[in-house]
Amino acid sequence: MVSFESDYIAGAHPKVLDALLRTNLEALPGYGTDVYCERAKEKIRMACACPEAEVELLVGGTQTNAVVISSMLRDFEGVVAAETGHVSVHEAGAIEFTGHKVLAVPQKDGKIAPEVLASYLEGFYADGNHEHMVFPGMVYISHPTEYGTLYTKDELTGISEICHRFGITLYLDGARLGYGLASSASDLTLPEIARLTDVFYIGGTKVGALCGEAVVFTKKNRPAHFMTSIKKRGALLAKGRLLGVQFDALFTNDLYLEISKHAMRMAERLKEMIREAGLPFYLDSPTNQQFIIMEDEKLARFGEKIAYSFWEKTDETHTVIRLATSWSTTEEDLAALANAFAEM
Amino acid sequence: MVSFESDYIAGAHPKVLDALLRTNLEALPGYGTDVYCERAKEKIRMACACPEAEVELLVGGTQTNAVVISSMLRDFEGVVAAETGHVSVHEAGAIEFTGHKVLAVPQKDGKIAPEVLASYLEGFYADGNHEHMVFPGMVYISHPTEYGTLYTKDELTGISEICHRFGITLYLDGARLGYGLASSASDLTLPEIARLTDVFYIGGTKVGALCGEAVVFTKKNRPAHFMTSIKKRGALLAKGRLLGVQFDALFTNDLYLEISKHAMRMAERLKEMIREAGLPFYLDSPTNQQFIIMEDEKLARFGEKIAYSFWEKTDETHTVIRLATSWSTTEEDLAALANAFAEM
Amino acid sequence: MVSFESDYIAGAHPKVLDALLRTNLEALPGYGTDVYCERAKEKIRMACACPEAEVELLVGGTQTNAVVISSMLRDFEGVVAAETGHVSVHEAGAIEFTGHKVLAVPQKDGKIAPEVLASYLEGFYADGNHEHMVFPGMVYISHPTEYGTLYTKDELTGISEICHRFGITLYLDGARLGYGLASSASDLTLPEIARLTDVFYIGGTKVGALCGEAVVFTKKNRPAHFMTSIKKRGALLAKGRLLGVQFDALFTNDLYLEISKHAMRMAERLKEMIREAGLPFYLDSPTNQQFIIMEDEKLARFGEKIAYSFWEKTDETHTVIRLATSWSTTEEDLAALANAFAEM
Amino acid sequence: MVSFESDYIAGAHPKVLDALLRTNLEALPGYGTDVYCERAKEKIRMACACPEAEVELLVGGTQTNAVVISSMLRDFEGVVAAETGHVSVHEAGAIEFTGHKVLAVPQKDGKIAPEVLASYLEGFYADGNHEHMVFPGMVYISHPTEYGTLYTKDELTGISEICHRFGITLYLDGARLGYGLASSASDLTLPEIARLTDVFYIGGTKVGALCGEAVVFTKKNRPAHFMTSIKKRGALLAKGRLLGVQFDALFTNDLYLEISKHAMRMAERLKEMIREAGLPFYLDSPTNQQFIIMEDEKLARFGEKIAYSFWEKTDETHTVIRLATSWSTTEEDLAALANAFAEM
Repeated sequence: MVSFESDYIAGAHPKVLDALLRTNLEALPGYGTDVYCERAKEKIRMACACPEAEVELLVGGTQTNAVVISSMLRDFEGVVAAETGHVSVHEAGAIEFTGHKVLAVPQKDGKIAPEVLASYLEGFYADGNHEHMVFPGMVYISHPTEYGTLYTKDELTGISEICHRFGITLYLDGARLGYGLASSASDLTLPEIARLTDVFYIGGTKVGALCGEAVVFTKKNRPAHFMTSIKKRGALLAKGRLLGVQFDALFTNDLYLEISKHAMRMAERLKEMIREAGLPFYLDSPTNQQFIIMEDEKLARFGEKIAYSFWEKTDETHTVIRLATSWSTTEEDLAALANAFAEM
Repeated sequence: MVSFESDYIAGAHPKVLDALLRTNLEALPGYGTDVYCERAKEKIRMACACPEAEVELLVGGTQTNAVVISSMLRDFEGVVAAETGHVSVHEAGAIEFTGHKVLAVPQKDGKIAPEVLASYLEGFYADGNHEHMVFPGMVYISHPTEYGTLYTKDELTGISEICHRFGITLYLDGARLGYGLASSASDLTLPEIARLTDVFYIGGTKVGALCGEAVVFTKKNRPAHFMTSIKKRGALLAKGRLLGVQFDALFTNDLYLEISKHAMRMAERLKEMIREAGLPFYLDSPTNQQFIIMEDEKLARFGEKIAYSFWEKTDETHTVIRLATSWSTTEEDLAALANAFAEM
Repeated sequence: MVSFESDYIAGAHPKVLDALLRTNLEALPGYGTDVYCERAKEKIRMACACPEAEVELLVGGTQTNAVVISSMLRDFEGVVAAETGHVSVHEAGAIEFTGHKVLAVPQKDGKIAPEVLASYLEGFYADGNHEHMVFPGMVYISHPTEYGTLYTKDELTGISEICHRFGITLYLDGARLGYGLASSASDLTLPEIARLTDVFYIGGTKVGALCGEAVVFTKKNRPAHFMTSIKKRGALLAKGRLLGVQFDALFTNDLYLEISKHAMRMAERLKEMIREAGLPFYLDSPTNQQFIIMEDEKLARFGEKIAYSFWEKTDETHTVIRLATSWSTTEEDLAALANAFAEM
Repeated sequence: MVSFESDYIAGAHPKVLDALLRTNLEALPGYGTDVYCERAKEKIRMACACPEAEVELLVGGTQTNAVVISSMLRDFEGVVAAETGHVSVHEAGAIEFTGHKVLAVPQKDGKIAPEVLASYLEGFYADGNHEHMVFPGMVYISHPTEYGTLYTKDELTGISEICHRFGITLYLDGARLGYGLASSASDLTLPEIARLTDVFYIGGTKVGALCGEAVVFTKKNRPAHFMTSIKKRGALLAKGRLLGVQFDALFTNDLYLEISKHAMRMAERLKEMIREAGLPFYLDSPTNQQFIIMEDEKLARFGEKIAYSFWEKTDETHTVIRLATSWSTTEEDLAALANAFAEM
């Protein structure tokens, strides 16, 4: 069985694993105070062209969202997110567990339109009862989104300006940021993202690491005693080196971007194969996740050969599935997929 | 200035206040262990025709919602509510503060339709990713709703059956329950509400008391050591007598229902006056809150004589306002209102 | 049965109740925006000789502690309290429920000695691991304490200076503040308390009100959008007038202090009677709560006539009990007590 | 510089790392549903001689404590721990962050004596005010403790019996469990620990893994939908294989115990060297952490060659330091240490 189930089906990129191997027996201090964490942070600052950035390494995506959001919001504030956003739906209430509401707003293809955001914020302050309501204190977006779509530079600039106008933090969830940056459809660079957002994270788990997400505070806005807040949320890794060594490797010689480009080349081939197979796309995704509509009968045969993600039913005889490429997708995987399409 | 701003503009009904006066100097034990609390609870059990009910007295509505919801939900659960529900919008995130998500579902006139609820719950369990999502552990409805509307017996029966089919607690917020029971449009009695729900509260604050809400657990389902959970939420009143004496008075000689009927008679008169003034209703409310659409110019003149609640703008020149009657509304109030309508 | 069980056995002082009666049918806006709340706050500012004070009215003591402490602490901070403090032991974990630790320090007669506090704080910052620990962000003291004892002006000044040296908020729980101010042993005035603390509350529930505590932020340090934070904790009263009218009455013509003085005169008489009865004091309390050690056999007889509070067992045949006077204690109560002592 | 600073200074044991390397490119499903997680769990069940055990793999120690404690406690309960326990002092308030109090009890050498526990629990229920207090719902112990000490079988049996008598969960933090099991001073086996506790965890981070702790529920008492509760706390690893592969390796051919024995042999040698150097032990630790008292002058010279952990000052010229061995300690490390002792 060949798997296109997700972009976290394999371990670490060989160069990342090799770095873990090479440094394994070095005696290093704990809790992220080692030299590899420092190197990783410095390389990330440089990649972001943001020398004043404060970088923190955490283990996973939901954890990162909960730590960042809950430590930056004030008591009376919640976080605005698309109604389909990861924090809105697929984190088992991790944000609410910290005592803060996710304020869901309408979306299109997983994105919040700048005008929708502006209208929401204006409406909030126009409401005479808003002191009885949760104040919007942060805007959460993901890039790529849950549906693999990307914000354009214009859109992100719009959202950024609205946030600043209302004095609200803009936070970008980059669990799959590499695939967004490497997409030919993207007109946004890492430095631009650093400039337009207040805080974002560079996802490692889905882009070559065993685990790990790098949070980047771009406006000298890291909360005070952030290490204690991380610890308080059970998110401080004793062997911080595990994160430092991996991100050091990922940001050496552009590895992060290079392996993301590979995944995108594979994704382009995948899209081409889907088109050739005459399968309808559920939506137009320019990144490594592709959503297609399958007849259930065909899907049953397909599923015997290819592992995929069930997304949702569209009607009684059709299903939306997700196929994802990643840094680990091979020519052999694509060949097997082509075969499976042909034999449906 | 005469006020129709809300149903909590006056103090307590004179009989309630008189009971406080009569018992004021009696030495009574604290924390709800006094004889008046016991009497009030027994009278409420009888009014509900539910001898096994467990009754608890709390101070306010948001507090009651937070205490009941958070102490009954399990760790992995959230509460389903209409997207316009009080817990969804107007409690400043009080439910989320306890670590639980409010799962908003579509509404019509403030109500959740049984089929909408069923579809939501079926969809949840059909979703292959639901272990990553907040489980629906309770359904919250208000009766009357935020918009003054009422569930019919059929609708409440439908919701109740769906909840039981899915093993979910049904909780009814009765902040204005008296006005619902006293409405000529209602086909639901207090015993029926007790039978069809798992827990509900009888609102005192808006129906004759200075403060106070009586929670009724109808299925021997009060959480263990509930008094400690109340205290933990800062909701345990030292002088529990304040609640006991008031509810004892409200449930003596049907006072609660009688004063609610008065409010409803006043509301019927109010509706008639609105119709006569040719003002359009925003929606059809059968209870003490009436929502009408006003031209802003007229509203400016109206507002000089009558205190009202701003609800929302419908367009650039029109506004929805709320006018509410209560146990304290007088003939003089109505006369002043008639006058204000005439002179707009 | 005559009761010395606590200082919350009666309703409200007649003048307080009378004020509720007089204002009962006035139409007033909700949520503490009425004129009586404003008057009460202004009178409290004047009584504190602190014109810039921000005053907020809440319902009960545990609620007040939870609201104040959790909205003022930063994420990585906890509150330092005596190991016998109300927040440490008798609030069912209300502070922890808000996500913050109570940092218990040693006490003597319910008080934290300045040197104990200094040593604790110095030790914290000297600990190389303190980034893994909860930072002390506030010091909580009660005055009178759980044991009826009082801080001297020197002691409070010492604690205040230490707090400011470490940049820590000093919060004083004044659930029984009136009895402290009225004690002949006190050398602290309300303005001095306002000056030496950063925030404190003036207890109403135990000093003449049906319910209510007045929080005083003395250093322009009320948290932003505090009303929303109150609402979020389920602590916002719809009929805020209930608190406003009562505190307005309590701070008219020095009523608060006058009724406290009465309680203290009664307490002096009580102490004299205990001495005459040859009963040992558990500790020397200069306020309205007296703790005495009783032989269990005598206590059994005593308990048939007088309601008291069990405090703790000292050995197999002796018990510490608490007897409390209040504004409502009468000559007849004392006479009955004298009788009960005589007949033990 | 040679390091005895902690037992988490190195990466993973080579056999563990090799297992990660061998399985790296296998396509595996996420979130702990892969075959390596299953194998690891089965091997742990067998090592515990507890076929009905439910095993869950988490990332770190504080995270594990917070997840287990907060998902097992009921609303009105807290966790009893030694006043020096990790959850009491060194987790930055992670337990309180989940809304539950840590109930600190006196300790000796890091341990709770059974009679101290019994006395605490009896006192709680004897207290007439205990409904206003946090109920003890779980007992937390660590084995080895913060000070490297071990419970005897008699002591653990005593604590276990007391917990069951009071209906309280017994939870054992085994962050360094391997070193406890491998200590010649231990009379407890893994199956006995599984039998005497209700839930415990087998520490991986400090015993050969890059990260990872294996929670063992021994009494069919894993909370319902535990995966959702893990996710809610941001503790669900996307690539669960990282934990599964490592624990599979650690529990193959007794690797976990073998490498623990190595650490203990090194610790015995270390203790011998300390004795020979005439340095006083701060306390008698039978495991891999040794606490010694050093003159500050000597310590300054020692610190130039050996990395150690500062523990606390005993007086103005002496310091307690911790030296720890682990699976990664080598002969060369010991030789360097001997040298450093000689040249102090």
